Amino acid sequence: MAELRKDPITGRWVIVAPEAPLTPKDFEPEPRTEPKGICPFCPGNEAMTPPQIAVRCPPGKPWRNRVVPNKFPALRIEGGLERIGVGIYDRMNGIGAHEVIIETPEHLKELADFTPEEFLELLQLFQERSLDLAKDKRFRYILIFKNFGEAAGASLSHPHSQLIALPIVPKRVKEEMATVQHYYAQKERCIFCDLVYQEVKDRERLFLEGDEVAAFAPFSSLFPFELWVAPKKHAAHFTSAPAPVLQDLARVLPQIFKRMRDVLRGPSYNFVLLTSALEDRNEEAYHWHIEIMPRLTRVAGFEWGSGFYVNPTPPELACRYLRGELTA
Amino acid sequence: MAELRKDPITGRWVIVAPEAPLTPKDFEPEPRTEPKGICPFCPGNEAMTPPQIAVRCPPGKPWRNRVVPNKFPALRIEGGLERIGVGIYDRMNGIGAHEVIIETPEHLKELADFTPEEFLELLQLFQERSLDLAKDKRFRYILIFKNFGEAAGASLSHPHSQLIALPIVPKRVKEEMATVQHYYAQKERCIFCDLVYQEVKDRERLFLEGDEVAAFAPFSSLFPFELWVAPKKHAAHFTSAPAPVLQDLARVLPQIFKRMRDVLRGPSYNFVLLTSALEDRNEEAYHWHIEIMPRLTRVAGFEWGSGFYVNPTPPELACRYLRGELTA
Repeated sequence: MAELRKDPITGRWVIVAPEAPLTPKDFEPEPRTEPKGICPFCPGNEAMTPPQIAVRCPPGKPWRNRVVPNKFPALRIEGGLERIGVGIYDRMNGIGAHEVIIETPEHLKELADFTPEEFLELLQLFQERSLDLAKDKRFRYILIFKNFGEAAGASLSHPHSQLIALPIVPKRVKEEMATVQHYYAQKERCIFCDLVYQEVKDRERLFLEGDEVAAFAPFSSLFPFELWVAPKKHAAHFTSAPAPVLQDLARVLPQIFKRMRDVLRGPSYNFVLLTSALEDRNEEAYHWHIEIMPRLTRVAGFEWGSGFYVNPTPPELACRYLRGELTA
Repeated sequence: MAELRKDPITGRWVIVAPEAPLTPKDFEPEPRTEPKGICPFCPGNEAMTPPQIAVRCPPGKPWRNRVVPNKFPALRIEGGLERIGVGIYDRMNGIGAHEVIIETPEHLKELADFTPEEFLELLQLFQERSLDLAKDKRFRYILIFKNFGEAAGASLSHPHSQLIALPIVPKRVKEEMATVQHYYAQKERCIFCDLVYQEVKDRERLFLEGDEVAAFAPFSSLFPFELWVAPKKHAAHFTSAPAPVLQDLARVLPQIFKRMRDVLRGPSYNFVLLTSALEDRNEEAYHWHIEIMPRLTRVAGFEWGSGFYVNPTPPELACRYLRGELTA
């Protein structure tokens, strides 16, 4: 019998189908094709990107990572928002920032191969860029994400993540912030804190507990082998995460990517860093976290239209594979 | 300059990027692979499906369409819901119905090739099955959809659509019903009615206006070449659609699928029929419609996580291609 599970934060019900669950062997890894032409993100080709915004480059040594504007940005930094109504509709100019974080000079290196020290630099870069863009009063939200592999929407294979500064708060974040506030008004506790506490205590869906962060498969995972990483102590804004939290995160994340690569044979994946809206000064309004979604299935067809998901791999089972208790 | 557009019904903002918009030539059609083995939906193989629920079969002639239970159902009809709380979480048994509508005996026929009469029979079948399942008081919503092509999640190529009866109302429908009610409370009009009226009047995003239904590219399309078809007169429930509306719909839909096939070179696609919740007796609470989404791009990577979409083809441009004013 399948199970219907409700996400306590989004309110979304998901069909989790454990009758004949899909396991790692059921997911065929997509062949990785290398885009043709010169890689604009490789050392020596710096002139192929727009002028860099930030760089880590010890004196007299090669750079370790760079931030550049996206050459084909979804949003542009110049101009005014010019909000207007078109009959029943609302529109505004596509004002924002769209940056690319080139994570390493090494074309073939994956996040799974990053040392904790290397990953820490990347997380610090996310914080620095977020803090810098937050000064622009037109922006309401900063979204950091990564598309790895073609199936996840990556058009370049050189390791990179992206940052988009938006003049609006994404609907999903807005809704989740409202849920967190509502829950807090009732219980004087953060719903994410309760959720992380339960996952750490139950251990059934726990991938790894660090000193500061916990990684777990969410109860109502939309996708097979989805994992979330969240700080154990309440924190609304990623940008305020102190050094010990970042260090622990930098230790846990490469382990996740390594296990996903090993167990799922190098899947494409997306990760998204979800944090509170910029204007939010209410420290109870959110609990930042990272969501990692391997792109294993295309069964998610009608889901885009209906918003109703079927997940063929129960998160408890996914976790047992990722923890190495079961092998494919 | 890209544009940010807000969907008046979902409240979702979408980046519509018209600076270097993608046109039909930019979308590579996926090669269609034929699954191996005997097709369980072809005439002669009726024993390969579970016992049929409905059939159109004129006396002494072969069947024209059949409805069978899904052999690998996401939800099952037998049992009780048994709602329970697991700490912070809610769950219930996966009770529901999951049916397959085999649209034709012809393995290679596509919806684009259906005559209006054939399409009408299919729509009538959707209505019949919905009305039958609506008698079961455990169900709150009936979702009818089609996955065509591998990229859209189809596992069998024989023409078929699916029906899932759910013990919950999908989050998206619930939210949209709330928006419609809120708008009605303010204006005593349905927001979908206003939207359809504006699209028919403006014509910029109009694909085709029939006597009873209108087909248009939505202002804040999430996907390139997305089209919606809605009745011009207010109607909450698809099951109550009278014969003239169904007839007009049966005339318009094959034209849409034909144009999509011609212009986009046979894309995979999903369609979803969105209608009001079963318990809804408030005839203002929704406006049923069909959403058709060709699956052209995988750029939608991080969108699953963030709920924030970038659409590389402005709907006005998509419509000009679909109407034949521009050629690829």
